[in-house]
Amino acid sequence: MSSVPPPPQHFASDNYAGMCPEAMHWFLEANASGHEPAYGDDRWTQRVSDRLRELFETDCDVYFVFNGTAANSLALAAMCQSYHSVICTPQAHIETDECGGPEFFSNGSKLLTTDASTPAAQLAKLTPDAVEALVTRRDDIHYPKPKVVSLTQATELGTVYSVEEVRAIAAIAKRRKLRVHMDGARFANAVAHLGCTPSEITWRAGVDVLCFGGTKNGIPVGEAVVFFDRELAQDFAYRVKQAGQLASKMRFISAPWVGMLENDVWLRNARHANAMAQRLHEAIHALPGVRVMHPPQANAVFAFLPKPVIERMQSVRGWRFYDFIAGGGCRLMCAWDTRAEVVDAFAADLAAACGAASR
Amino acid sequence: MSSVPPPPQHFASDNYAGMCPEAMHWFLEANASGHEPAYGDDRWTQRVSDRLRELFETDCDVYFVFNGTAANSLALAAMCQSYHSVICTPQAHIETDECGGPEFFSNGSKLLTTDASTPAAQLAKLTPDAVEALVTRRDDIHYPKPKVVSLTQATELGTVYSVEEVRAIAAIAKRRKLRVHMDGARFANAVAHLGCTPSEITWRAGVDVLCFGGTKNGIPVGEAVVFFDRELAQDFAYRVKQAGQLASKMRFISAPWVGMLENDVWLRNARHANAMAQRLHEAIHALPGVRVMHPPQANAVFAFLPKPVIERMQSVRGWRFYDFIAGGGCRLMCAWDTRAEVVDAFAADLAAACGAASR
Amino acid sequence: MSSVPPPPQHFASDNYAGMCPEAMHWFLEANASGHEPAYGDDRWTQRVSDRLRELFETDCDVYFVFNGTAANSLALAAMCQSYHSVICTPQAHIETDECGGPEFFSNGSKLLTTDASTPAAQLAKLTPDAVEALVTRRDDIHYPKPKVVSLTQATELGTVYSVEEVRAIAAIAKRRKLRVHMDGARFANAVAHLGCTPSEITWRAGVDVLCFGGTKNGIPVGEAVVFFDRELAQDFAYRVKQAGQLASKMRFISAPWVGMLENDVWLRNARHANAMAQRLHEAIHALPGVRVMHPPQANAVFAFLPKPVIERMQSVRGWRFYDFIAGGGCRLMCAWDTRAEVVDAFAADLAAACGAASR
Amino acid sequence: MSSVPPPPQHFASDNYAGMCPEAMHWFLEANASGHEPAYGDDRWTQRVSDRLRELFETDCDVYFVFNGTAANSLALAAMCQSYHSVICTPQAHIETDECGGPEFFSNGSKLLTTDASTPAAQLAKLTPDAVEALVTRRDDIHYPKPKVVSLTQATELGTVYSVEEVRAIAAIAKRRKLRVHMDGARFANAVAHLGCTPSEITWRAGVDVLCFGGTKNGIPVGEAVVFFDRELAQDFAYRVKQAGQLASKMRFISAPWVGMLENDVWLRNARHANAMAQRLHEAIHALPGVRVMHPPQANAVFAFLPKPVIERMQSVRGWRFYDFIAGGGCRLMCAWDTRAEVVDAFAADLAAACGAASR
Repeated sequence: MSSVPPPPQHFASDNYAGMCPEAMHWFLEANASGHEPAYGDDRWTQRVSDRLRELFETDCDVYFVFNGTAANSLALAAMCQSYHSVICTPQAHIETDECGGPEFFSNGSKLLTTDASTPAAQLAKLTPDAVEALVTRRDDIHYPKPKVVSLTQATELGTVYSVEEVRAIAAIAKRRKLRVHMDGARFANAVAHLGCTPSEITWRAGVDVLCFGGTKNGIPVGEAVVFFDRELAQDFAYRVKQAGQLASKMRFISAPWVGMLENDVWLRNARHANAMAQRLHEAIHALPGVRVMHPPQANAVFAFLPKPVIERMQSVRGWRFYDFIAGGGCRLMCAWDTRAEVVDAFAADLAAACGAASR
Repeated sequence: MSSVPPPPQHFASDNYAGMCPEAMHWFLEANASGHEPAYGDDRWTQRVSDRLRELFETDCDVYFVFNGTAANSLALAAMCQSYHSVICTPQAHIETDECGGPEFFSNGSKLLTTDASTPAAQLAKLTPDAVEALVTRRDDIHYPKPKVVSLTQATELGTVYSVEEVRAIAAIAKRRKLRVHMDGARFANAVAHLGCTPSEITWRAGVDVLCFGGTKNGIPVGEAVVFFDRELAQDFAYRVKQAGQLASKMRFISAPWVGMLENDVWLRNARHANAMAQRLHEAIHALPGVRVMHPPQANAVFAFLPKPVIERMQSVRGWRFYDFIAGGGCRLMCAWDTRAEVVDAFAADLAAACGAASR
Repeated sequence: MSSVPPPPQHFASDNYAGMCPEAMHWFLEANASGHEPAYGDDRWTQRVSDRLRELFETDCDVYFVFNGTAANSLALAAMCQSYHSVICTPQAHIETDECGGPEFFSNGSKLLTTDASTPAAQLAKLTPDAVEALVTRRDDIHYPKPKVVSLTQATELGTVYSVEEVRAIAAIAKRRKLRVHMDGARFANAVAHLGCTPSEITWRAGVDVLCFGGTKNGIPVGEAVVFFDRELAQDFAYRVKQAGQLASKMRFISAPWVGMLENDVWLRNARHANAMAQRLHEAIHALPGVRVMHPPQANAVFAFLPKPVIERMQSVRGWRFYDFIAGGGCRLMCAWDTRAEVVDAFAADLAAACGAASR
Repeated sequence: MSSVPPPPQHFASDNYAGMCPEAMHWFLEANASGHEPAYGDDRWTQRVSDRLRELFETDCDVYFVFNGTAANSLALAAMCQSYHSVICTPQAHIETDECGGPEFFSNGSKLLTTDASTPAAQLAKLTPDAVEALVTRRDDIHYPKPKVVSLTQATELGTVYSVEEVRAIAAIAKRRKLRVHMDGARFANAVAHLGCTPSEITWRAGVDVLCFGGTKNGIPVGEAVVFFDRELAQDFAYRVKQAGQLASKMRFISAPWVGMLENDVWLRNARHANAMAQRLHEAIHALPGVRVMHPPQANAVFAFLPKPVIERMQSVRGWRFYDFIAGGGCRLMCAWDTRAEVVDAFAADLAAACGAASR
C-alpha cells in the first residue's frame, strides 16, 4: 500500500464530478420559493424549455428525464416498435452500457451494430456505408426492420462527428426512411470542439431527436430529450410518466439547467473539459510505452499503457481510470471541474511510472 | 380576478413542498467532496443503506430510485411475471396514478382491484376478506394468477392501517402464497400516526418489500426500495439499471437521506404534517356545508365542500387543492413545511366562503 | 356414478366441436400438393385473402394467426402504445379470459371496463354513453389515455349488437379519436342473426379492425385479423412474425378457410348453431326453476338453474357446461355441429332434473 | 422463361413439405370423435405427453405451442428476466430468424453471440471456450447478465453436436450458473445422425429445456416444449396462455404427435431426410465449381456454387433453394418426403449447369 495521499480528482468518468456552481445556484433558488406546482408546472421548467428552444433556434419539444439510459431508451422507444431495429456502432453506449434498456423500453427492438473492423468503427463512428450495409442486408419479415440510426456525439471514444459527417449519415437515413437519434451525453463537448451552433449539428444536419446530457456537464441529475421532429413526441409525456421518469418535484431537475444555459455555462464547462484532455494528451503522448489511440477531440484521451504502468498508477498512486479496452487500452476522462494541476500531477506520475517500466 | 395576493403555500399535494434543511445540508455536503465514484459506490449511499438497516432492525437490501412510480413498479415487477396479478384497492396509486407503470415494468401483470363498496374500501383499505375474495374468484390459466398484495400506508385517503390490520392481510397473503408489497409514499406519516417502530409495521407484520417515500417527506428527488425478503432482490440492481433508474451521481440521491435519518428528521417532518392536518380538521369540520369524510390519521383532510365554496376558494382566493372525488370531495394535503398560520388562513377563508354560501 | 352413457356432445363451448367437412376437405387438399412455399407464399393463403376481400367488399389487409387471444392482442397492440388504454365491457373476453394477453402484447396497455350496473352492461354491451364516460373521466398524463374501443360481436353473453348500435359506438369513438376493434370470435353467429352483410356490420359501421373467428365456426386452428383501415396494418407482418404467430406451413391454417368461404359455409354453420340455441331456449325456458337471462340471439342460452339441477345434470347425467356466472348462471353453448336430438336429450334431462328438484 | 415443368419438390426448406401420413391419420382420428374438451383436456394431449416422457425416459413437463419462434422464445423467457442475456452462435435461429421474438417475449433479454471467426463458429457450433469468453467478458450491472446457453441441434448449418460436445458445454454452463436450452427444430435429424437415445443428448448431457420440433419432421403445425428441469416450468401454462399459444382445439395440435411417436416415425422421417442429404452430397460434391462447406450430418448440404450456376438452377430450371450465405453459399435442405429421384434430378441439372458454366 502506498503512503501517498489519494488524488483529489480522477480520470475514471466525468460523472465523478459534482455539480457546478451555476447549477447549484438555481437548484437552491428553486427551493427558496416554497410551494411550487409539481410535475413540471413550475416556472423553471417552462423557462428552461423556452431557453432550449432559443438555443436550438427552433420550436422543439423538450422533456426532462432522470438519466441517460432513460433518455436514450425512451427516445428510441418513441421511434421504434418492438419488431424494429436500431443501427449503431459496437461501442455505442446504448449497446454496451445500458443493460438492455433500449430493448426493455421498446419491448424488444434489436440493436444492429456496424462492422467493427472499418477505420471509422475504430473511432466509434458510423458511416453512410455502414448504415447502408445494415439496412440492405436483409429484407424479410424474419428479421427486425431497421427504423432508427443512433449516433453518439461526442462518441464513446472521444471523437466528434463533423457537421458533414452527420449530414451524410442523416441523408442516407432519410433515403432509407430511418429516423436519426443523437445520444448527446457529451453533446456539449462536441459542440465545444466543433465551434458550430447547436442547430447546425442537430436538426439542420438531419437529427430528429437529441438526448442532451446535463449530468456529465455539471448538473446533479437529469437529461433533456429534445424532439426536433415534434410528431415523434406525440403522447411522449405519457410515456415518460409511465416509465417512472416524471419527477414530482420537477423544479429540482429543471432549475439547474437555467444555470447551465445562462451565459453559455454549458459550453464553458465543456470547453474546459476538452482543454484538460488536450493538456493531458500533450503531456503524455510521447512518453515511452504510451500509445495514444487517436488525438482527443472531446474530453477524453484514449491510450494504450503497459500493464505494469497501469498497475502502478492505480494501485500505488491511487488514480482511478478505466482500462477496459482489450490490450491495455485506457480511458482518461476529464470533467468540467478537472484542474490543470491534477492533470499535471497525473502526467508526472505517469511519466515516472513509464520511466520505471521502461528501465 | 382577485386582488388578494396568492397564498404562500397550498394544500394540493405534499410534493408542492421543497426540500427540508437537513436534506439540503447533506445534498450540499455531498457536492463539497469533489470527485466521487459513481453509481452508488460513494460514501453516502453506503452510509444511508446501513442506517436504514438499523432503522428497520434487520439486514434488508436497499436500493434508491428516482420516484414513486418507479419504486412501486420495479418492486412489483421483481415479484410478478407478466401472467401474474397484483391485488390492490380501487384507489391505489399504482392503479390510478402511475399511467400503467406497473403493467409496463412487469410486461403485462394485471392489477385486480377489490370491491369498492365495502366500508373498508371507503377508507381505501384492503381487508383479508377482500384479498381472499379475489384470490379464490378464479382458478384457471385463462386469468392472471394473483401473486402480490399491495397496500398503501398511509392510504390514498389519508387513513392508516393498524399493525393488526397489516398482520391480518399478510397472514392471508402468506396462506395464499402471495407476496406483500407496501407502497409507502407516506410511510413516515403512517409511522408518526401509529407511534410504532418501522419494523413493527413492516417485516414484523409480514411485509416483504417497502417503497419508502422520501420526496413527500422533504427529499428533493428519490425513494428507497427496501427488501425485507432479500431473495426477492436477486439481480435487482440489474433491473434498476436497465429501467433507467440508476443515478450516475448517486450521491445526490442518497446523501439527503442522511439528513432525514439523523435525529429522526423523517419522523419529525411527518409528525408536523400530520399535526397540521389535525389542526385543519379541527378548524373546518364543523363549518356549515363542510362534511369531512373521515377523521384524518395521516397528513390529509378529505372533505366534501359545496361547489360554490370550492369555486370561491380556488378562483377568488387562489388556493390550490384537488376536488377530484365524485360529489365535490376535496383532498387537503399538508406537507412537512405547512405552516400553522397558513392552515389558519385557509380555514378562515373557508369559513368565510361557507358562511357566504350558506346565507 | 351414473350408469348412463356419456352424452355424445356438450354445451360447454363451441370449441368442443371438431372441424367441419368443408374445412377438412381443403386441409387435406392443401396437403396433397406436396411441396409448397412456406410462411404464406402458398396458393391458398392468397386465394383466401382475396376471397375475404370480396366478402367484405373492400380492399382490406388480411392476416392469419393461431388463436383468438393472439388475434385480439396483436390487433390491439397495433393500435395502442403501452401508455394507452382500451375501453371494453367487464365481460369482454380480452378482460376476462386472455390471461392478460392484451397487456402483454402491448407492453402494458390498460383495459378500462365500463360500469357493470347499466342495462346494456347486463347484456355485455357497450353503449356510446359508457364509452364517453370512460373517455372523459380523466384527462391527465397520470392515467393511460384511451385509444381503442373494443366490442365483441356476438357478445360473451350471446347477445348481438345491431348495425345502429355499432354505428353509434363508432361515431363517439371517432369523435374522441378512438379506434374501433371488433372481437369477432363468433362474428359469423352475429351476422347470421342480423341477416346483414359482413361489410354493413363492420367497416361501413365504423369498425377499423375485425378479428374474424374461424375456430368456433368449424376451422381446426386459426383466426383472421382483418384491417379495414390499412394504415393500422403497417408492418403488421413483422409483428405477427415476432410474436410467434406466423405459421411456417401456413397452408394448413389458410386452406380450411377456402372451405368455409365457398358457398357461405361459414354462415350456414353459424345459422345452424344459432338455430340450435333457439331450439334449446324454447325447450327449456318455461321449465320450473329455470330462469333464462335473456332470449338468445347468437348460439348460446344463458340461464339460471337451481344448484341441485346443475349438480344432477353434470354429475349424474354427464353433461358438460359452464356454471360460472354468480348465482347459478349457466352458459349453454351450441356449435356448428350440435345435433337437434342432442339438444332434445339435454332438454329432456333438464326437464326431469327440474321436475325432481321442484317436487 | 423455361419450358420445363417446375420440379415437384424443392430444397429451400424442410417446411415446404406437408404432413406425413401417420400425422394425418391421427389428425383425422382426433376429428372423428366429435366433441372433445378444449385447451388440452383431451385424450390425445395426455397420451402424447406421456409418450414423450417415455421417449425421454424421465418425468418431464411437456407443452405444445404453435411454432418454433414461440417455443424458443417462451422457453427462454421462462429462464430469463429482461436484464439477463442468452449466449448463442451468430447463426442461431433465435438471433437471425425470429424477428426479435426472444427479446419480445422476455421483454428485452439480449442475445450475446459468440466470436464468428473460430472453427467451431464456422460450423455454427458453440464451444465451452466461446461460452466462457462471453460469461467472463463483463461483470457489472451495466450489461445484461448471462443466464442461458442456447444451442441448436442439429445446427443451422446442418452440423450435429456430439454427446460429448453438449456435455462439455453444459458443464461450463452449470459452473457459471447458466441454464441450457436446446433449439431442436431438427432434433430428430440430430438423433438420427448420432444414433443415441433422446435422453443421452438432452437431460443426461445437461440440457434443461428442449424445443422439440414437429413441423419440419412431418407435423402440420406445432412444436413441443419439454422441460427436463420441471422447476423452470412453474406457471408455464399461464405463460403459454397469455402469449396466445394455447390452442383451444388442442387435439389438432397434439394428436398428430401420436402418429410421429408410434413406431418411431419421427426417427424414420429424420433418417430419410438425412439420407437424402447424403445422397445429394455424394452426387454433387465433386462437380466442377461446387465447393461443399462441410460434409452433411443432418438433412442439409451447404455448398458454394458459381453465381451463373445458381442463376441457371433457379431461373431456368425452376429449383427453389436459398443462396443467402455470403459468397454464393447455398443451403440445400431435404425433407421427410424428399424423393430420391428428385435428388437425382436436381443433381443432374446441377451437373449440367456446372458443366455449362465451366466450359
